[in-house]
Amino acid sequence: MVDIATRVYNHKWKIDPIVRSLIDTDFYKLLMCQSVHRNSPDTRVTFSLINRSTDVRLAELIDEGELREQLDHVRTLSLTRGESTWLRGNTFYGKRQMFRPDFMEFLEGLRLPPYQLDKRDGQFELTFEGPWPQVMLWEIPALAILMELRSRAVLKDLGRFELQVLYARAMTRLWEKIEALRDLPDLRIADFGTRRRHSFLWQDWTVQAMMEGLGDRFTGTSNCAIAMRREIEAIGTNAHELPMVHAALADSDAGLRAAPYEVLADWHEEHEGNLRIILPDTYGTEGFLAGAPDWLAGWTGIRIDSGDPATGAENAIRWWRDRGEDPRGKLIIFSDGLDVDRIIALHRQFHGRVKVSFGWGTLMTNDFRGLVPGDGLAPFSLVCKAVAADGRPTVKLSDNPAKATGPASEIARYKRVFGVGAQQALAVSV
Amino acid sequence: MVDIATRVYNHKWKIDPIVRSLIDTDFYKLLMCQSVHRNSPDTRVTFSLINRSTDVRLAELIDEGELREQLDHVRTLSLTRGESTWLRGNTFYGKRQMFRPDFMEFLEGLRLPPYQLDKRDGQFELTFEGPWPQVMLWEIPALAILMELRSRAVLKDLGRFELQVLYARAMTRLWEKIEALRDLPDLRIADFGTRRRHSFLWQDWTVQAMMEGLGDRFTGTSNCAIAMRREIEAIGTNAHELPMVHAALADSDAGLRAAPYEVLADWHEEHEGNLRIILPDTYGTEGFLAGAPDWLAGWTGIRIDSGDPATGAENAIRWWRDRGEDPRGKLIIFSDGLDVDRIIALHRQFHGRVKVSFGWGTLMTNDFRGLVPGDGLAPFSLVCKAVAADGRPTVKLSDNPAKATGPASEIARYKRVFGVGAQQALAVSV
Repeated sequence: MVDIATRVYNHKWKIDPIVRSLIDTDFYKLLMCQSVHRNSPDTRVTFSLINRSTDVRLAELIDEGELREQLDHVRTLSLTRGESTWLRGNTFYGKRQMFRPDFMEFLEGLRLPPYQLDKRDGQFELTFEGPWPQVMLWEIPALAILMELRSRAVLKDLGRFELQVLYARAMTRLWEKIEALRDLPDLRIADFGTRRRHSFLWQDWTVQAMMEGLGDRFTGTSNCAIAMRREIEAIGTNAHELPMVHAALADSDAGLRAAPYEVLADWHEEHEGNLRIILPDTYGTEGFLAGAPDWLAGWTGIRIDSGDPATGAENAIRWWRDRGEDPRGKLIIFSDGLDVDRIIALHRQFHGRVKVSFGWGTLMTNDFRGLVPGDGLAPFSLVCKAVAADGRPTVKLSDNPAKATGPASEIARYKRVFGVGAQQALAVSV
Repeated sequence: MVDIATRVYNHKWKIDPIVRSLIDTDFYKLLMCQSVHRNSPDTRVTFSLINRSTDVRLAELIDEGELREQLDHVRTLSLTRGESTWLRGNTFYGKRQMFRPDFMEFLEGLRLPPYQLDKRDGQFELTFEGPWPQVMLWEIPALAILMELRSRAVLKDLGRFELQVLYARAMTRLWEKIEALRDLPDLRIADFGTRRRHSFLWQDWTVQAMMEGLGDRFTGTSNCAIAMRREIEAIGTNAHELPMVHAALADSDAGLRAAPYEVLADWHEEHEGNLRIILPDTYGTEGFLAGAPDWLAGWTGIRIDSGDPATGAENAIRWWRDRGEDPRGKLIIFSDGLDVDRIIALHRQFHGRVKVSFGWGTLMTNDFRGLVPGDGLAPFSLVCKAVAADGRPTVKLSDNPAKATGPASEIARYKRVFGVGAQQALAVSV
């Protein structure tokens, strides 16, 4: 029985919007936005899209008009009453009223600022410029839109049956991963895959699968819209963006050297408990930990987001011991390039020695490797980063030179200031 | 948007019928029925359900009331105008008007006869008694109903998400089998899986998958309803039922010995070409071929349905050569216990030496092995056979003693008459 009204309604769609909510974004963007809104409301930043997978020629795959329609749609979004109620009324990390009234008022009035879009060498040049608290909220929707438009471009050549088999295979693959994870004692794992997801609906399905398969060992999702919809925890703390912008604004080498700690001093004032998670690799983990003030060793944990993860974790454990802290009370969050084998290996190596948690990203929400001819749905490495603050370039080094961003001369200066020596280059696949 | 009318309509279902059409049956049943309708319309037979997998305690899994409702529903079915048109107007095996007008009139007036149902030792005792041309059409719907009620009994404890994952995994498994079959040159394979299917909808999906994945290497389905619906070939010739009933009716050992050939002499008169397929194993392939008249060696091919298939095929090739026939012009149809590995091995051994074709059954339409706890959806070996004709017991020996049916004393007599010596017992899993 065909529902004619539904059929006719479906005929009328102009676009199928990819991002349909301002909170279809990572929780840590909102946490950081609140911090920025208080501490640096007038800083002007530029965010820019960077496709590290140059072989994926996005501007040849994706129609520019369609991209503009999707981006324009995001600019029409504002916080709904239900979303605002959820942000104001919910408990995050056990805390009520995580978001202050002045910040909620800002968010309720927010529309995302304009974008600049060009094409060059088969890639899109997509930039956002304006006040930091506004521009920073473009990062996740911009990535999600480009990822999903790429999926759509590849999928449009498939027939209905092929699509059915494709998703059956992707479901089977994820489910078998979940079954492999089930046996790990005291597993704690969360979804960090919004930015590289195959599509919104697929991310939402993967979250459902994790809930069904892992129960409370699945600790939540970084995606606020999905957390709200599925009534689960929203997860996330802070990211490289904070030290990068603060470092760019420093007026001297001494100021630059101090910037990553100053940012965390602000955070220390604002947050406690499980929100006090160190992200040490922006300008090299080794130097960061060596020069860190003792109050940072008192923080709850550390997030390992680049370099060899086992080495990073061993270094963190050694550092805590050196500072007189008991590592067994500390939390290590692994969030870089995870898939099941690595999760199992890291769990085996560190379970019982520290509290271990995993932020599973791309290979949870976008593992379509090998499922279409030419591997056209394989995930790729797209980022959207702060590239300038008040007219000065930003720099990120990380523990993997393949992930470094910024002008070469500035990278050299930062390496000198932060005492970063030779680094091991690791392939960045996702 | 909820379609309230559809929702309310769905509320009103009394049962969800498993068999919804008289032609949701194997094509060879209709071909044999026409032959029986002409040659033995007054023979009275008894068909009986036999569960060779005694560990699957059907009467404990399936509610007797539900089983009765499903069987009663089949008794309400009659040939629809569209089905009659399709049987009358279609080309089967290249021939128009395969079904004669007198047979079509019989079929158009047919309702299936009553059944007897009891329970004993955790199993259903389900029998059908009456004129052969009517009773014989119970076999396939009875098996399909029991198989699907068993599936439903196991599935009723699963949640919506678990069901989604279950079918995604089953789809993935079948699709990967199809991908493995794609590389075989000159592959010819058909669906023979109606009787042991997981469910009607699943069989229909597997047929669609074979069409999508194999194109014209998929030669058709034995299921008439699906062949009609999907506009593909209906496949099948004849089965053990014909020699079994004729043998039971023989009045002497000499008559018994001649019965299997007399049946095929009738068939020879009625059919030609690809319908002339020998099924030699009812009372032992070796003796059957040794004693066969020369006109049988002129038939198009042979179906290997029990015993070691490679041995059976080698014996057939040798027999054709002994009778002066060129095996390269002959067709061997493998139809027993097939799965991908065996198909590939048999194809490798016989491709180029004879024409090879596969009738893929249970592990195409019902491979849910290992997909639920306790393996409750694994296929099992259920048959519905002629057990008596005009009051005399029937016997089947086959090339595998595990598949033999009939009273022990009659089995001994048949073995003597047909000169069947020691046989190798092979496990019957499906």
